[in-house]
Amino acid sequence: MLAEIVGRLGGEVVGNPEVTIKQVATLESAGPGDIAFLAQRKYRPQLRATRAAAVILAHAERDVTVLPRILCADPYLYFARVSMLLNPPQEVESGIHPSAVIEPGTHIAASARIGPGCHIGRRAEVGEGACIDAGCAIGDDARIGEASRLHPSVVVYARCVIGRRAIVHSGVVIGADGFGIALDAGQWLKIPQIGRVIIGDDVEIGANTTIDRGALDDTVIGDGVKLDNQIQIGHNVHVGAHTAMAGCVGIAGSARVGRHCTLGGGAIVLGHLELADGVHISAGTLVTKSITRPGTYTGVYPLQENSDWSRTAARLRNIDRLEARIRTLERLVADLHGKE
Amino acid sequence: MLAEIVGRLGGEVVGNPEVTIKQVATLESAGPGDIAFLAQRKYRPQLRATRAAAVILAHAERDVTVLPRILCADPYLYFARVSMLLNPPQEVESGIHPSAVIEPGTHIAASARIGPGCHIGRRAEVGEGACIDAGCAIGDDARIGEASRLHPSVVVYARCVIGRRAIVHSGVVIGADGFGIALDAGQWLKIPQIGRVIIGDDVEIGANTTIDRGALDDTVIGDGVKLDNQIQIGHNVHVGAHTAMAGCVGIAGSARVGRHCTLGGGAIVLGHLELADGVHISAGTLVTKSITRPGTYTGVYPLQENSDWSRTAARLRNIDRLEARIRTLERLVADLHGKE
Amino acid sequence: MLAEIVGRLGGEVVGNPEVTIKQVATLESAGPGDIAFLAQRKYRPQLRATRAAAVILAHAERDVTVLPRILCADPYLYFARVSMLLNPPQEVESGIHPSAVIEPGTHIAASARIGPGCHIGRRAEVGEGACIDAGCAIGDDARIGEASRLHPSVVVYARCVIGRRAIVHSGVVIGADGFGIALDAGQWLKIPQIGRVIIGDDVEIGANTTIDRGALDDTVIGDGVKLDNQIQIGHNVHVGAHTAMAGCVGIAGSARVGRHCTLGGGAIVLGHLELADGVHISAGTLVTKSITRPGTYTGVYPLQENSDWSRTAARLRNIDRLEARIRTLERLVADLHGKE
Repeated sequence: MLAEIVGRLGGEVVGNPEVTIKQVATLESAGPGDIAFLAQRKYRPQLRATRAAAVILAHAERDVTVLPRILCADPYLYFARVSMLLNPPQEVESGIHPSAVIEPGTHIAASARIGPGCHIGRRAEVGEGACIDAGCAIGDDARIGEASRLHPSVVVYARCVIGRRAIVHSGVVIGADGFGIALDAGQWLKIPQIGRVIIGDDVEIGANTTIDRGALDDTVIGDGVKLDNQIQIGHNVHVGAHTAMAGCVGIAGSARVGRHCTLGGGAIVLGHLELADGVHISAGTLVTKSITRPGTYTGVYPLQENSDWSRTAARLRNIDRLEARIRTLERLVADLHGKE
Repeated sequence: MLAEIVGRLGGEVVGNPEVTIKQVATLESAGPGDIAFLAQRKYRPQLRATRAAAVILAHAERDVTVLPRILCADPYLYFARVSMLLNPPQEVESGIHPSAVIEPGTHIAASARIGPGCHIGRRAEVGEGACIDAGCAIGDDARIGEASRLHPSVVVYARCVIGRRAIVHSGVVIGADGFGIALDAGQWLKIPQIGRVIIGDDVEIGANTTIDRGALDDTVIGDGVKLDNQIQIGHNVHVGAHTAMAGCVGIAGSARVGRHCTLGGGAIVLGHLELADGVHISAGTLVTKSITRPGTYTGVYPLQENSDWSRTAARLRNIDRLEARIRTLERLVADLHGKE
Repeated sequence: MLAEIVGRLGGEVVGNPEVTIKQVATLESAGPGDIAFLAQRKYRPQLRATRAAAVILAHAERDVTVLPRILCADPYLYFARVSMLLNPPQEVESGIHPSAVIEPGTHIAASARIGPGCHIGRRAEVGEGACIDAGCAIGDDARIGEASRLHPSVVVYARCVIGRRAIVHSGVVIGADGFGIALDAGQWLKIPQIGRVIIGDDVEIGANTTIDRGALDDTVIGDGVKLDNQIQIGHNVHVGAHTAMAGCVGIAGSARVGRHCTLGGGAIVLGHLELADGVHISAGTLVTKSITRPGTYTGVYPLQENSDWSRTAARLRNIDRLEARIRTLERLVADLHGKE
């Protein structure tokens, strides 16, 4: 019921407060029992056509519909909260599956779950309510915090630490060796990677993302960091609390990314750079120098039809010649002016 | 025998039709029993040197060799068909390996194979002739279509659907949570991802590719789509039928890619964009706006020797100053012309 | 003791040679029992503040500290060697875990280790001292060389070959099908991928990297190649010995990368190209043509604040118009000069 939702989450009901709400949905696909939301004005036509039982609106939108509605300050955030209310995380059935292999000396909390085929290394710790899904491998002396969930096929190398309430998706690898090599007469010598990965609380890590262990010191991921899929975090990187990175980002070794930063998909930060708090990097941008002031930074080649691009790229490659022609003109024009 | 091949696949034999053919090969590495093909004129020198037993040529190339040969309209396509004939998919031995863990309520076809160490969730369905290789995890209520093959270590999350005759390579993750987060006073709130991934028939998915489940509605991959390795498909994306993407492509959330599109390696499509049918994106290109007309689109910084690049990049960064100098010249020249 | 280290690795001790050394560390985090190193002059302030028991310096830096020290030609390389001395690879406990599934006809050396939940295919070979960690899948007829280590959840497809002393990190997939498709009346026909992956000796492969099998011939990775995480190597690629690639690099099909090359993070090499020996590609660079001479090559859009970038990108997109304006000016100025 709308009234219950508002009772828990605040906001104002307009219309029938006893409408039954079972699920969240988009304006377009909502049906009876669904609550939808209007986050941007441009979706108003969809609001008119929706079959939702109720909608979530900003206060200013109070009269744009006759549907039962909740008014609030931030409809998207409110919708997120409603969705969490209606879709609580699945309860974990505690216990160790008989097919899991548990090495000596582990501390696995009684309320934790270890799925089929997992391998838990020596002296590893798994906290209360944590869930390690099928086929995960946890290295010796690693620690998984309370209420954290590792989806199937996650690998955590030895000695790495994951905080509380983490969500780690399938295929994630935490603590593989960083890319530490030294040139020795034309051949590469491997440098042992003896640091760890330390991950704070409330971190989510997307599928197939990799976070390398430190070379000497640790790689550190702050509280509340959200990483999308297929991200690569190099050794000794520090990521500040509440920073979010979209898919396919790469952070090279020893870089330091501040707090409350965002990185768009496919962005790359080179090694040893520092990004201040509150820096936003656009998708597809290569960061080649440290950034000391908050703001949005971009370095993206503009998209063109291929034939236009060919012309533009040729001009760009020869931009030096354009400059030379301008210089010649400047000399000639100065000359002409002088002669007047 | 050449004659048998032509009997099945069409084309014209020139030379001895009873030559024995056991395998396909390149012109360069072919030996007795091998059939090679000439797809481009520039490989003619290799044709002269080849030790192949026979070759596949376009009709127009009829007389470029004395080797036994098949003439056809499209040698590359013909070669592909010959290769399929000579290299049929390995037969699946049906049955559930005793080390697999099968939860209650599943429907696993009698002719399907479940490999060692797999975990099949509650009520999951696996179709006739499907093969789930070692160490895969199939979530509750997921469905794998007839004759589909999942290589080792694939993860399919709950409720996701894969069609018939799919080939899914190792390390693929289907249905992990999309990157849905809402800002709540400087911290990120996770938005439950309650949609699914729906994959059509005849789709191939390369190693370590990830396809996220929808936030509310479903992520949809059309029939005949071919995805290479390490591709990331965000939540709510729709990919039209018969579209092909090369390695390392990223498609951000809610983007819609048309039918019969191609995306080159490492291309990125930003969120919520639409690409029309028949759009071709060059490798390494970031797509920052919707594309409504078919064609080829590019946005790639040209490669240069590093010292040239430094100069070019400095000029580019200051291209505004070039424009200002041109503007000044224009004013001065207009001035001079006026004074004549 | 310093004296022991120098006894094994060479170099000159200055100060007390009997200082006990237990571990390597950075200047910043070193404590008693640690040896640190000074690789670049800019870290001298850290040298002054360090609590390290000893340091490794270049001969020229002999007098910059009073700490016990080792003088050598290349402090970084020396440090790498000390680290290997103090951190030898963990000894492998030989034996096949009872939960591993071993198909008929394998050759597993007595001193090798097969971890829990592994699946070893028919006729596969595992060399002396090799270690296959938990949950790996080795295909039929594959070969893993002596003293190689596969971390958990690695997949090696059928018939692929890994040399001696390889280190393969978790999530790596070797030998998945290359992206070979042929267009057949608007639909994609799969071309069977019947080549293999052949990997030399002393190769390291980072987490979630993928190397595809050849279409007809083999994909070949030379001796001593070092690959970071999340790299994609297409079918039929050849990578020359002692080449190193940073994270997220993509090498498209049939490209040939020379010996002693380096590729920065996120670089992409298009298909069928050739890179000479000793070519260095900067991070984030797309290589669109073959490179025949050693050197450093770059193609990276410069980073700017977003508002500056918008202006620059607009000018770049219209660089043709700038050229036209210059041409007009040139005509006008020639005109004026003529009239003098």
